[in-house]
Amino acid sequence: MNRISALREQMNSRGIYAYIVCTEDFHGSEYVGAHFRLREYLSGFTGSAGTLVVTQNQAALWTDGRYFLQAERELSESEITLMRSGEPNTPTIEQFLQDSMPENSFLGFDGRTVPAEFACRLQRKLSKKNIGFKTDEDQGNAVWNNRPPLSRQPVIAFPEELCGLSRAEKLGEIRKKMREKNAHCLALSALDEIAWTLNLRGADVEYNPVFLAFMLVFEERALLFSERSVFSDEIARELKKDGIEILPYDSIYSALEELSCNVWADPKAVNFRFLNSLENAKIIEKPSPIALLKSVKNAAEIAAEKTAHLKDGIALTRFMKWLKTAVQSEKITELSAAEKLEEFRELGVNYLGQSFAPIMAFGEHAAIVHYSATEATNAFIEPHGLLLCDTGGHYLEGTTDVTRTFVLGELTADEKRAFTLVLAGHLELLHAQFPEGVRGSTLDYAAREPLWKQFLDFNHGTGHGVGFLLNVHEGPQRISWRAVGDAPLKAGMITSDEPGLYVEGKFGIRHESLLLCEKTEHGFLKFSPLTLVPFDSAGVEKSLLTPRQIEYFNDYQRMVFEELSPHLSEEERVWLKEITKPI
Amino acid sequence: MNRISALREQMNSRGIYAYIVCTEDFHGSEYVGAHFRLREYLSGFTGSAGTLVVTQNQAALWTDGRYFLQAERELSESEITLMRSGEPNTPTIEQFLQDSMPENSFLGFDGRTVPAEFACRLQRKLSKKNIGFKTDEDQGNAVWNNRPPLSRQPVIAFPEELCGLSRAEKLGEIRKKMREKNAHCLALSALDEIAWTLNLRGADVEYNPVFLAFMLVFEERALLFSERSVFSDEIARELKKDGIEILPYDSIYSALEELSCNVWADPKAVNFRFLNSLENAKIIEKPSPIALLKSVKNAAEIAAEKTAHLKDGIALTRFMKWLKTAVQSEKITELSAAEKLEEFRELGVNYLGQSFAPIMAFGEHAAIVHYSATEATNAFIEPHGLLLCDTGGHYLEGTTDVTRTFVLGELTADEKRAFTLVLAGHLELLHAQFPEGVRGSTLDYAAREPLWKQFLDFNHGTGHGVGFLLNVHEGPQRISWRAVGDAPLKAGMITSDEPGLYVEGKFGIRHESLLLCEKTEHGFLKFSPLTLVPFDSAGVEKSLLTPRQIEYFNDYQRMVFEELSPHLSEEERVWLKEITKPI
Repeated sequence: MNRISALREQMNSRGIYAYIVCTEDFHGSEYVGAHFRLREYLSGFTGSAGTLVVTQNQAALWTDGRYFLQAERELSESEITLMRSGEPNTPTIEQFLQDSMPENSFLGFDGRTVPAEFACRLQRKLSKKNIGFKTDEDQGNAVWNNRPPLSRQPVIAFPEELCGLSRAEKLGEIRKKMREKNAHCLALSALDEIAWTLNLRGADVEYNPVFLAFMLVFEERALLFSERSVFSDEIARELKKDGIEILPYDSIYSALEELSCNVWADPKAVNFRFLNSLENAKIIEKPSPIALLKSVKNAAEIAAEKTAHLKDGIALTRFMKWLKTAVQSEKITELSAAEKLEEFRELGVNYLGQSFAPIMAFGEHAAIVHYSATEATNAFIEPHGLLLCDTGGHYLEGTTDVTRTFVLGELTADEKRAFTLVLAGHLELLHAQFPEGVRGSTLDYAAREPLWKQFLDFNHGTGHGVGFLLNVHEGPQRISWRAVGDAPLKAGMITSDEPGLYVEGKFGIRHESLLLCEKTEHGFLKFSPLTLVPFDSAGVEKSLLTPRQIEYFNDYQRMVFEELSPHLSEEERVWLKEITKPI
Repeated sequence: MNRISALREQMNSRGIYAYIVCTEDFHGSEYVGAHFRLREYLSGFTGSAGTLVVTQNQAALWTDGRYFLQAERELSESEITLMRSGEPNTPTIEQFLQDSMPENSFLGFDGRTVPAEFACRLQRKLSKKNIGFKTDEDQGNAVWNNRPPLSRQPVIAFPEELCGLSRAEKLGEIRKKMREKNAHCLALSALDEIAWTLNLRGADVEYNPVFLAFMLVFEERALLFSERSVFSDEIARELKKDGIEILPYDSIYSALEELSCNVWADPKAVNFRFLNSLENAKIIEKPSPIALLKSVKNAAEIAAEKTAHLKDGIALTRFMKWLKTAVQSEKITELSAAEKLEEFRELGVNYLGQSFAPIMAFGEHAAIVHYSATEATNAFIEPHGLLLCDTGGHYLEGTTDVTRTFVLGELTADEKRAFTLVLAGHLELLHAQFPEGVRGSTLDYAAREPLWKQFLDFNHGTGHGVGFLLNVHEGPQRISWRAVGDAPLKAGMITSDEPGLYVEGKFGIRHESLLLCEKTEHGFLKFSPLTLVPFDSAGVEKSLLTPRQIEYFNDYQRMVFEELSPHLSEEERVWLKEITKPI
């Protein structure tokens, strides 16, 4: 019996007509531990965003534009219908369920893995048909044999000289924000917010150095709900000194039920059961203050990040040199190239590992926006066309995320044009200057204008915040015209600049650097690039750049040479000089 | 006794500690009839936006960046403190009242002239100090001798061939939207929405061809709350045929109290008493569907608008020719120039009057963003520097709004630079191309980028929607990076493009055209200018424009010549040819 059928049998036994499986863990994390990959287990779809809905006679998976091609491929042998979110004729999940569920039937999901906001939307929409909700059980447990247990990796202390602020200082900042909102308790669910606050790091979530925990911050003390065994006695003692008590991970829900004070919690950031457990509290519905505190890097963090990016730039530059030479004579695949890059990164001191699944995509594979090579898709990299390389690393000094598109041989005019227009947008955003208060939804125009002018566009955001040895994707700022209410840029934020262009079946282009937001002497804000990796100027069609874009490009290439060359061998230096020479 | 003191005496007699006077009428209109100008009567401040707060020992007026200079001047002789909204050290009104009102005291305002959203914010903020609210009386009545009565101007029918849609068709569209939201009643308060729906126009509000009314739309019928005597029997009969009954204006509140069904009302668009009167209804809190329906002009409206703009372009061009010649020899003032322009507009067939108070601002006056010359400020226009001319007209075929900055003689390098950078932004926005869904908060980057690159900015929005023979300012779209949740641009919308730059005590620049949003063959959206008035190329410093901006400029000037010249005299044609020749 296949997995969907097994789920249906389980649903039948519980009187559930339709069952929803989201991608999230208990904390709404972007990446999730092995235990939480039920949607992948049931559907075969491996993308990082998507929701599976199984009813008695249908199965459908919703995902967004980044994953349309990948999902098509991965679902092609299954009975599961692909629902392309955001396309005009695709119903929302709420609409689909309203249309397909009989009156008085039951909807099921694990209330701990479904975002509260989505569940509330379902409740509103389905109340008209008197649909009941069964949300106390994870039906996946009965279906998934040998399901991996919850991760319990040891937690490590993060040195204060790198963080710039002690745990006590951070709690002081947070409590100041709580007093401003008259909150007696701040209820935290986001793993990166808890790790940031406590100056601790873990390894319970792939690519994200966080540990499974909830936290309640009160005026005088704090409760940390997490597996006690992952903390050394020394860390537990240090936490206790700062007034933090460790309680069992799953006792969070009963603790929430007991709260009857003013509790600051963000209904958009917690799971359904978390929100429902706050039944006796007066909820202050606001985004957590930590997102903003965490996004504005202090001087110590910025200094450390520059070190991390220097090491990352050296690794990438060595990789680029190796790649462009080796592709002429060696057998290289997408997977072996990613391994090679990992080797170069591992040469860096304090390298801790990848910050997300590397994207090494040759030719038409690069048109699949979040392509990640597997044994099944792994392609040979040949001496023609383009290789899109989107990777990142965690160093003790910070997190990197960089995309370069490498030229491996002859390019078509279309490839050169796309390479250059995307580059123009990347450079325009890098050089944007703007007053305080401006949001990324406005700045996105800078990156897209060169494409829009040619009636071209790309189907993903242009930029995301990046954590400091934390999640490679964080808010509250982003760069996307689709964003509504995104946070204004602030000096100290680190944000990616990654426009792209994708031609299905042919090629894909993306140019990404991380940008540090800084204050100018005129009180305006501007960006300064942290990423130190040359662009492959062989892809540039100079006539498509404006004079100022040519200047921006040459300035960047020169800076990369100046920063990296003292750390390179003579041979590498000569090669880099040539690759970064002005166009 | 001065007016503020008289108000305080009245407040005392009612046990009111602090009293708020907003700028709004009962409908939240931008311009208001004479009866509603209590804030102006009490404070002397004549700007179109501002809120007066009087307490037992303080008086303060909040207004925004457009009016800082004007308010400073107009308040200088009074005891009233100017509160600069949006500046870092200015408290909000809520904060000010929270700080200055004693516990258990009373706040007063006329609940009909205070926006519901603002009043609710006050309630939330002041509840901590147990402040009571007295909102049933307009304390202005006792203070203001000979207060003008409510306007009761006759209503006229607007020809269907110009509107493109009959009243019944519009009601059909509206009811379709109501069914989608399961609304039994749509409660309307915005005067332009009611005028648009009914294909009627009035004259109860200065510059806005609307009439005082509320309206409740039900599935089968509609109730219009308005003074019966302003409708001819014929119009009343026509309304009745479409199922619309006229009831007394002030019976709206009791009618709202009786509603116990699903009522679609926008708490952001109605007054406090209106919202409070819906105590028995289930409110569907959404923006009215009419704002969007109204903003997307149909083919008949667009054709008519083009006629209006042709007439307006001829009038402005004649004015420009007259001005640039006459300034050399004649005594011209700001007021007499405005009269002269009005004469040129009146030569146009079906000209109905000004669409807002004309701004004719010479030299440093132009730095006062919403300056409107009075007998006291009226300046001579001299043959040097710049004249900023922001005016608009209502024609039977539509509403115009145009700003040109005319060069009257020698310019300083600063003036030329400002003129040109603002022009560059204006042209970049005019030529923006973008996918469906993009909002003006993103497009604003195009207009501001040339200024931001020089660390310059202006303190007002870049664009607003414009009604079809209706309010010159309408939503739901706008062009402003400060906007959050502004509506995406749609084909058929008319939006202004009016960046500026202001140097206090020296000069002001603004270039404004109205743009029609259109679909391109690639499924993108673009703009096409409706305004047909040449720019004064004597202000352009060509070296500050990019090659494409020069092309955009010359294209516009050529189009203006081609459209207008067939309607001009030979002498005018020769002059226009010269003024529009390529730079």
